[in-house]
Amino acid sequence: MADTVQPVQPIEFLRGLRSVRRFTDDPVPEQAVADIFTVSRWTGSARNLQHWAFVVVRDRDTLGRMAAAEGSAAHLAGAALGILLVMDGSALIAQETFDEGRLAERIALVANAHGLESCIGWFKGPGQDEVKTLLGIPAKKLVRTVMSIGYEDTGADGARSHPEHPRKPMAELVHEGRW
Amino acid sequence: MADTVQPVQPIEFLRGLRSVRRFTDDPVPEQAVADIFTVSRWTGSARNLQHWAFVVVRDRDTLGRMAAAEGSAAHLAGAALGILLVMDGSALIAQETFDEGRLAERIALVANAHGLESCIGWFKGPGQDEVKTLLGIPAKKLVRTVMSIGYEDTGADGARSHPEHPRKPMAELVHEGRW
Repeated sequence: MADTVQPVQPIEFLRGLRSVRRFTDDPVPEQAVADIFTVSRWTGSARNLQHWAFVVVRDRDTLGRMAAAEGSAAHLAGAALGILLVMDGSALIAQETFDEGRLAERIALVANAHGLESCIGWFKGPGQDEVKTLLGIPAKKLVRTVMSIGYEDTGADGARSHPEHPRKPMAELVHEGRW
Repeated sequence: MADTVQPVQPIEFLRGLRSVRRFTDDPVPEQAVADIFTVSRWTGSARNLQHWAFVVVRDRDTLGRMAAAEGSAAHLAGAALGILLVMDGSALIAQETFDEGRLAERIALVANAHGLESCIGWFKGPGQDEVKTLLGIPAKKLVRTVMSIGYEDTGADGARSHPEHPRKPMAELVHEGRW
C-alpha cells in the first residue's frame, strides 16, 4: 500500500469520516502510526492536563484476547492495529471523558488521512480490569476506549452494514437564538 | 473577510489546532455556520444516538450573560458567535460526555478550516441552570459545553498567552505492546 497523505477539502474530510469494523490483513504503515501520535500529543485537554497515554497493540493473540473482553471491542480481533487509550483515572472524570472523545476523534481522522479506517471500542466492567492485567497497566488508570485501525475490507460480510446511519433533520438539531 | 475553504494538509491541519480566547468583532460567515452544523450532524456517536442539539447565540447581551455564568466561559463575552451544545441528559452520561468531546473537536476543526478560531467553555453547577433558563432549554437537558467562535484578535492582551503549551515527551505517551 502506498502511504501518502494527500491534501483534503477539510469540510468533506470531516463530514465523511465513518466507523469501519472489518479490516484487511495489510499492516498499518509506520508513518501513519507516527502521525497518529504526533497529532495525539498536540490534542487539547482541560487545563492542558494531557491525561492520557497509549498502548499500541500489534500482537494478534493479544488483540484477540482484548476483543473477547467485556464491552464492544469485538472488531479488534480483525484489526491490523489496536490503540488503547489509557486515561489517568483522576477525580476529573467528566473532563477526562470529554477529552478522551476529542482524542479518539482526532486519531480516527489521522488514520483516515492515510486511507485507513477505524472503529471505537469500549471496555466495560470486568473487561476493563482484564485488559489492564493483560497489558500490565496500573490498576488506578482508566482503560475504556480502544481504537481498531486498518484498511477497510470492502468484501467482508457486514463491512458496510451501516453505510449511512440516518441523521436528525437540521431543524431538530439547530436552534437559533434560543431553544 | 473572504470566506473560502482551502484544501489542507490534513496532519498539519489537525496538529495545528489551537484554543483562542480573543476575537475581533468580525461576524462569522454564514457558510462557516452551515458547515459547522453539516459536520456536526454527521458526527459519530454511541449507537448513533446523536444525543445533541445546538443553540446558536449571536446576541451580544445574551453572550455577556452566558459569559458571566459559573464555569469557564468568560471568553464568550467577546466572541462573534457562541454555539451551545445541548446534550440529552440521559442515563448514558459517559457516552454522552465522550461524544460531546468528539463533537466539540469537530466544530473547532470546521471553524479553523474557515480561518476562524475557537475556545471550549464549560458551565458548572448553577451556571448550567442559569443558561438553561436564559435560553428556554428544558431542565432535563445537560448544558455544559459552549464554543466561542470568531476571528482571532492577534493584537489583544493575552491573545497568545498560551501559544505552545508544553507537551508530554513521546516516550511517556506511547507504550509499544504493553505498559
